[in-house]
Amino acid sequence: MKISELATLSGAPLSAVKYYQREGLLHRSEKTAPNQAIYDQSHVQRVRLIRALLGAGGLSISSAKAVIDALDADSLAQAFGVAQAAMSAPRTTDPEPSPQSRERVSELAHAHGWKTTPENPGFEVAARALDGFQSISFEPSDSFLGAYAAAAAKVAKADLTAVMRLPDREQKTELMVIGSVLGNPLLAGLRSLAHENETHTHLTAQES
Amino acid sequence: MKISELATLSGAPLSAVKYYQREGLLHRSEKTAPNQAIYDQSHVQRVRLIRALLGAGGLSISSAKAVIDALDADSLAQAFGVAQAAMSAPRTTDPEPSPQSRERVSELAHAHGWKTTPENPGFEVAARALDGFQSISFEPSDSFLGAYAAAAAKVAKADLTAVMRLPDREQKTELMVIGSVLGNPLLAGLRSLAHENETHTHLTAQES
Repeated sequence: MKISELATLSGAPLSAVKYYQREGLLHRSEKTAPNQAIYDQSHVQRVRLIRALLGAGGLSISSAKAVIDALDADSLAQAFGVAQAAMSAPRTTDPEPSPQSRERVSELAHAHGWKTTPENPGFEVAARALDGFQSISFEPSDSFLGAYAAAAAKVAKADLTAVMRLPDREQKTELMVIGSVLGNPLLAGLRSLAHENETHTHLTAQES
Repeated sequence: MKISELATLSGAPLSAVKYYQREGLLHRSEKTAPNQAIYDQSHVQRVRLIRALLGAGGLSISSAKAVIDALDADSLAQAFGVAQAAMSAPRTTDPEPSPQSRERVSELAHAHGWKTTPENPGFEVAARALDGFQSISFEPSDSFLGAYAAAAAKVAKADLTAVMRLPDREQKTELMVIGSVLGNPLLAGLRSLAHENETHTHLTAQES
C-alpha cells in the first residue's frame, strides 16, 4: 500500500505518518522506486503502536523510538531494561532525588523481598515522587507506602503472567515492552475512578 | 526575602522562579516597591511543589497551574475533580478512545462496585491505554484487568486514609490534589522495581 493508504488504515493523519517515518520510528519498507515505498499490514500496526506510545503512554518521540528499538533486543530481560530506561529517562531539568527518599524506596523494596539492581530507574522515579510529597510536608507512613508496594507487586505479577502465556518470544517481548509503558496510564485511569468512589464514601457524611 | 533568596532556599534556578512568577504559579507576595516583592516561607514551599508537579508529576505548566488553582477550591470533592481533570487533560493530538474500550472500563468499574460519574477523566485515560494494547493485538483478560482494578482500589483507599488523618481542611485538600498527581509516578516507579523482581523469577529458568 502507499503511504496515504497506510495513514487511512491506521487512522493517523498523513502528516503524522510522514513525521514518524522521518524520525525513524517506522521500519523499512520495500522501495519500488527511489521515492516510492510499499507498506504492509505490519506498518499499520506499527503506526497504531507509535500513536499509543505517544498518546496514552505520554512518551516523547525519542523515548518512543528507544522503546520501539527495544523490541529487537536479544533477550526478554534486556528488552525490558531498555524499555524501562527509555520511558523513565529523566529530563535534564529534573532535580536529583534526595538520598533520604532513595533510601526509603530501597527499604521498601527490601521489605517486599524484591530482587532488583541499583540501575533500575524505578528507584529514581519513586524517590522523586516522595520528594514531591515533602514539598507539602506530607510524610508517607509505612502502611501508605506498603499499600503502594503491594499494589505494584500485584500488577507486576499480572503483567508477567500475561507475558508468559503468549506463545512465542516475539510476542512476549512486545507485550513486556509495550505493557511496561501502557500499564501506567491504565493504572492511573483506574486509580482516578477508584478515587472518586472512595471520595464519595469518605466525604459524603462530612461535607453534606 | 528577595527572589534570589527564594531561589536559593527552594533549590531552584533563579530563572525558573522568575518563570513560575510570570506564569502565575506563585501566589501574590507583599510588594515593597513597584518592582520589589517580599517572599516568605510559603513561597519556598510553593516553588518546591511546582517543581514536584513539573518534574516527578510530569505535568505541563498549564496543568500545574490548574492543579495549584484547585488548592483554593471550595470543597474537597471539587478540588479533587479539578485536579483530576487538569492532570489528564488530553492533548489535541490524542485520538478519542474506542467505544469498546470505554465500555470495557465501565464494566470493570461496575464489577468493582465503584460509584463514579461519567465525567471522571479516568474512563478516557484507561480506555486509551486499552486501545494501545490493541495495537499489539493484546487482548487483556478479565483477570489481568481485575488485578489492575484491585491494585487501583488498594492505593485509592490508602490515599483517602492518609487524607482523612490530616487535621485541617487545607492540608486535606493539599494532599488530595497533590497526591492525585504524585501517586502515579510513585506507583510507576515501584511497578518498575516489582517488574524486575518478577522478571528474574519467571525468566531465569527459561533464558539462562
